[in-house]
Amino acid sequence: MREVAVIGIGCTTFGEKWNSSFRDLFIEAGARALEDAGLAGEKIDALFIGNMSAGRFVEQEHIGALIADYAGLATTTHIPATRVEAACASGGLAFRQGVTAVASGMSEIVVAAGVEKMTDVASGTTVATLAGAADREWEAFIGATFPGLYAMIANDYMHRYPLTREQLAMVAVKNHYNGARNPIAQFQQEINIETVINSSLVADPLRLYDCSPITDGAAAAILTTMERAREFTDTPVKVLASAQASDSIALHDRRDISTLDATVVAAKRAFRQAGLEHSDVDMLEVHDCFTIAEICAIEDLGFCRKGEAGKLTEEGVTSLQGDLPVNTSGGLKACGHPVGATGIKQIVEVVQQLRGEAGRRQVDAKVGLAHNVGGTGATVTVHILGV
Amino acid sequence: MREVAVIGIGCTTFGEKWNSSFRDLFIEAGARALEDAGLAGEKIDALFIGNMSAGRFVEQEHIGALIADYAGLATTTHIPATRVEAACASGGLAFRQGVTAVASGMSEIVVAAGVEKMTDVASGTTVATLAGAADREWEAFIGATFPGLYAMIANDYMHRYPLTREQLAMVAVKNHYNGARNPIAQFQQEINIETVINSSLVADPLRLYDCSPITDGAAAAILTTMERAREFTDTPVKVLASAQASDSIALHDRRDISTLDATVVAAKRAFRQAGLEHSDVDMLEVHDCFTIAEICAIEDLGFCRKGEAGKLTEEGVTSLQGDLPVNTSGGLKACGHPVGATGIKQIVEVVQQLRGEAGRRQVDAKVGLAHNVGGTGATVTVHILGV
Repeated sequence: MREVAVIGIGCTTFGEKWNSSFRDLFIEAGARALEDAGLAGEKIDALFIGNMSAGRFVEQEHIGALIADYAGLATTTHIPATRVEAACASGGLAFRQGVTAVASGMSEIVVAAGVEKMTDVASGTTVATLAGAADREWEAFIGATFPGLYAMIANDYMHRYPLTREQLAMVAVKNHYNGARNPIAQFQQEINIETVINSSLVADPLRLYDCSPITDGAAAAILTTMERAREFTDTPVKVLASAQASDSIALHDRRDISTLDATVVAAKRAFRQAGLEHSDVDMLEVHDCFTIAEICAIEDLGFCRKGEAGKLTEEGVTSLQGDLPVNTSGGLKACGHPVGATGIKQIVEVVQQLRGEAGRRQVDAKVGLAHNVGGTGATVTVHILGV
Repeated sequence: MREVAVIGIGCTTFGEKWNSSFRDLFIEAGARALEDAGLAGEKIDALFIGNMSAGRFVEQEHIGALIADYAGLATTTHIPATRVEAACASGGLAFRQGVTAVASGMSEIVVAAGVEKMTDVASGTTVATLAGAADREWEAFIGATFPGLYAMIANDYMHRYPLTREQLAMVAVKNHYNGARNPIAQFQQEINIETVINSSLVADPLRLYDCSPITDGAAAAILTTMERAREFTDTPVKVLASAQASDSIALHDRRDISTLDATVVAAKRAFRQAGLEHSDVDMLEVHDCFTIAEICAIEDLGFCRKGEAGKLTEEGVTSLQGDLPVNTSGGLKACGHPVGATGIKQIVEVVQQLRGEAGRRQVDAKVGLAHNVGGTGATVTVHILGV
């Protein structure tokens, strides 16, 4: 397989973007990525788009062609355009398809992007649509929502491991601190532990500030071979590993509901591919759809033992100033979570950090890892990037 | 890139399958494909699933993980499972992702499958969901349906080229003849020209028998390297080309609405990849969602000049007994059109023909071509297979 590098990145701001349609969002992110790479769109020879549920959010399928069309590439270069979907891991999968296409020799320069427009529908529709990431017949149909499912994970976890309510809140506090330093973040205000603990109860023990928001946004990354990367940039970021794993779609079919086996397996696959140890990784973007999810992710990725991530968070290890900064972007929690775009936004953040372009949230990093989760962990992608 | 071969195929019967759920359909097709290849599921190292709109048809997204789970591979091998979507070309794209994964070395043995469960919803929902393959904002919103859009293509075509109403009907007559010889076909009755011409008007000039039906079904193909194929089968079918192209999603943005440029471009790419001439191809499975679509496909793929496919059909060239059999399976018209599964069913049919396993519809073929279209032609895949 050919070695693959990221040569361009672009992102919209994340938030409730009432003035941008689904198609506008992609175009903004894609144009920024092309500008970043100094490339004309006509040079791109494949598009991979991560999107969870435009069918229900905006009544539009056929997302690849739609995006190709609005990018001006459908009637000119007739570019192959492919939408991939794995609920909230759709972005991670789009990136992986892009990596595979370049690695295989099928394509030379590809755009891997993610987009979701979530705020233009009634909130009941949003909840029902998101529940489509879980098992419709055995979870959603009987009333399970995503906060409810992650609350079960949190309860199980807190029953078995020494995680305090305050430590859980510290995940949100840290991610809001980081988000306040990220110009694209949906939430740019710092918060404190009391803000989290006193916020409305959503699904016990998860409160409003334990939950990622509903977000519009898009992100894009441009990939080519490592060999050609220097034609476009002085700082190509190499894809050291691309791994993916699945698990049961329903939580009740898991061996252990507070360990995401798909994360464990995808991480092992990724580290084996990259030939790296955990100590080689300098920063992580993990899938903190809820605060408990970040705790599980750090452990299941193998960065500490089960039950230890709360303490690590409390000690500041995962902060911008710590030894292992986690979610420097603000994570899903503060940067926002346009579900199909999140996996690509994570890549964008890792690339910015590795290039030294992360401004007020810059950490010292040569190797970064992005961890994207679909549903309650039925799909996980892990990508390791390095300079 | 490594050479890729099909080593196993499986299909459900196509039709209104009230006793099979979405997940049942895939399992049946997947199990048949594994049995055909003499393989245990644990040997598969990636799944690619084509599905257009489970989100709207069955309120379920996260299709890759769902399928992996019900195949028993999510909690055992934690198989990477990826859903791809391009409306009615979702199956063709899933096959292409599978080819890329094996060609790249990312995977050794993959299942590329397609599935759609369309009959469990109110018919208004079906029409609205299918309209999601067109441009929601500029076509569907103002009331355009798929029969309406293809009727515009038919009217434009018949205004410019010498195609008679009878020739158009002959496409349906031929495909029903073939379907009557295909055990999986939704419609197993032969019809005559009068049946078509006297059937209810749907969108002038298209009548009921000009239209493909609403269908439940699934199809699966197993791919590995050409090098390893003979471990599993004496008759590996080689993937000679995998091509894809896009066009504007809305019909009104096309250069010419009765020529599908994405078909023209994808075919050129495929023939270049395969290093073949049109005369080397012995049979075609083309995307006849409406009778006019088969006429356009034969021409746009380059098998005759624009305006000549009606005459070819009338002369019997595209019949089972002709020089260029088209839609030996019965096509979308008679075999049925479970949108996400169609592209894979086409591959299954080509493989059956090349292996000499097509029973009463067997033709003499060493090279076959499968042509899958999304929407009114905004996505097209062309695959050429050979023995």
